[in-house]
Amino acid sequence: MLNIRSRKIQILIINMKNIEITKPSENIKAKAQQKIDLKTKPLGALGKLETIAVQMCCIQNKLNPTIKEKAFFVFAADHGIADEGVSAFPQEVTQQMVQNFLDEGAAINVLCRHNKVDLSIIDIGIKGQKNRNPNLMDKRVADGTKNFALEAAMPLRQAEQALQVGADVFREAKKKRKDIDIIGLGEMGIANTTTASAIISAITGKSVRECTGKGSGIDDKGLQRKIEVIEKALDFHKPDAKDAMDILTKIGGLEIAGMAGAALSAAAEGCAVVLDGLISTAAGLIAHAINPNVAAYFISGHQSVEQGHVYALEHLGINPMLDLDMRLGEGTGAALTINLVEASCKIMNEMASLKEAGISGKLEQ
Amino acid sequence: MLNIRSRKIQILIINMKNIEITKPSENIKAKAQQKIDLKTKPLGALGKLETIAVQMCCIQNKLNPTIKEKAFFVFAADHGIADEGVSAFPQEVTQQMVQNFLDEGAAINVLCRHNKVDLSIIDIGIKGQKNRNPNLMDKRVADGTKNFALEAAMPLRQAEQALQVGADVFREAKKKRKDIDIIGLGEMGIANTTTASAIISAITGKSVRECTGKGSGIDDKGLQRKIEVIEKALDFHKPDAKDAMDILTKIGGLEIAGMAGAALSAAAEGCAVVLDGLISTAAGLIAHAINPNVAAYFISGHQSVEQGHVYALEHLGINPMLDLDMRLGEGTGAALTINLVEASCKIMNEMASLKEAGISGKLEQ
Repeated sequence: MLNIRSRKIQILIINMKNIEITKPSENIKAKAQQKIDLKTKPLGALGKLETIAVQMCCIQNKLNPTIKEKAFFVFAADHGIADEGVSAFPQEVTQQMVQNFLDEGAAINVLCRHNKVDLSIIDIGIKGQKNRNPNLMDKRVADGTKNFALEAAMPLRQAEQALQVGADVFREAKKKRKDIDIIGLGEMGIANTTTASAIISAITGKSVRECTGKGSGIDDKGLQRKIEVIEKALDFHKPDAKDAMDILTKIGGLEIAGMAGAALSAAAEGCAVVLDGLISTAAGLIAHAINPNVAAYFISGHQSVEQGHVYALEHLGINPMLDLDMRLGEGTGAALTINLVEASCKIMNEMASLKEAGISGKLEQ
Repeated sequence: MLNIRSRKIQILIINMKNIEITKPSENIKAKAQQKIDLKTKPLGALGKLETIAVQMCCIQNKLNPTIKEKAFFVFAADHGIADEGVSAFPQEVTQQMVQNFLDEGAAINVLCRHNKVDLSIIDIGIKGQKNRNPNLMDKRVADGTKNFALEAAMPLRQAEQALQVGADVFREAKKKRKDIDIIGLGEMGIANTTTASAIISAITGKSVRECTGKGSGIDDKGLQRKIEVIEKALDFHKPDAKDAMDILTKIGGLEIAGMAGAALSAAAEGCAVVLDGLISTAAGLIAHAINPNVAAYFISGHQSVEQGHVYALEHLGINPMLDLDMRLGEGTGAALTINLVEASCKIMNEMASLKEAGISGKLEQ
């Protein structure tokens, strides 16, 4: 087992595009569906909990899926596109919010603590970050990205390195704690809804207007400017919808590449990956463009208020668990949903079957 | 404080209609809203978590609401209306499922255990229940209700007694564990979606067809019969939409009255009440008809697939937290949502303010 794992990791290091991600078998899916159908409840009455229970059986390739350890990774980086005035907040807020994460005062800290999820904060490219806090993982690839309205966000070398950082971060966590079987992905980066909307439009083919929302709270004029900035940039760069590296290079961002790398690496090791809102789902699209098998490992934490999110989810073929009118990012929706995934696994393992409980069958009608 | 409480309880015993339920002050609501608005996040970005955080401040009349102990009550009873063939399952399934609850094998057991919620199962009128399991609270008011297609479901005396049982069950739990500050309400009773749909139609004035769904899984023909049975019964009884006791007496059911009594009693003691789907929300309507102040203490656990649920929620002015395509009942949606309510309280207490974290303000646009 260890050999297979280390071989997979080696391959990962050699080439992100050749990660081996097992596609779950139809056989285990059918058996899992049958098992949940025979539980003490009307057919399908637990709705999405049943879907997730079956998915977890597929991911773990067994009929009694468990969650032993939960890890959460928040990748933070800056975006040159912030220069275009697309965000309601100044760029220094990335650093300030990361400090808030380290001080345990942000929503993602509260929610991970609440659901007993281990949280790591990774600096993959925060502009001007000098504070070497021991709790901040130093994985800096660059001092933020370039302004993609004017030039490529980063050289190919950096995009590859950022993907690799994400994979490494997961791999290192898994080395320390072998029982990690689910991860959540979150992010921090002022202006990153602009980057994410551009990626979603580029990959799904939906118009920029359909994929772009108000982020952390710009006004209507700001939204119009944001849409124009993205439209011009996509027109200038013409990224290849099928080529993840082309998109990452031209648009960014570093934390999006990091999340994509972590997702690919986690899926390769049979771990479920809980995505959050617009930005982590854009990372999901990047990972999916690299290896489509990864989608079987994705669970969508929540439906973001950001309008591009729905197209990203459609492209990946996944349905959000929660819909709480949230639009904070950081991974907050994913952190809440991990509790529901745990509940789903327990439904599969701990609920009695109709036969075990001696429940009478349905009446003939 | 104890004096006030015991006086309230005494009043409760004398007359359910005169329960004193404090209406939360607008003052605390405004202060709570201000507190959440200054947390380290864009305004409103935590969506429904923020709404619940503010509501919990109102319910507890303080700006740092906490959940120390969580209790869940599942009331079980039978319905004479089952004789009309309105359910997909035979009536004996009520007893069998209650046994499953006692054996800890049902979905509600799994989910309460998962979220560390103490679960009590109450026999308030299961037909033919003879098994005196020490874990089944014996609060039998009658051997089920009568068939409300033909006659009144129960005499007024029984409806009052069932309400009182609900109040007593909460009061006894609170006596043992003073720190209970949130309860969930669930139920078991074959054919009780028929009773609940009739109550919802009677109180909200929506047509029977709009309020009636397929319950535990009847077919289209069965649904048509269910609608006709309810239409005829409402036409025959003509229950007074404003008179909860009239509705309970004519339609039932015992477990619905029990949940309504528990809700009123919990609200009187400043406890939040998490409703589940169609049936517990119908109980919410009954409690609301008795004392409209109770609605401020209600949290809707989830949006049931049952179509009448949406009108019941509208009437109470509450929004569901979860929407997981569930239609199991038992209290399963409420048991999941308690985790979100806890998260909301922690957001209010543990998240840093923008000032504490030194986060730069929004840019002028």
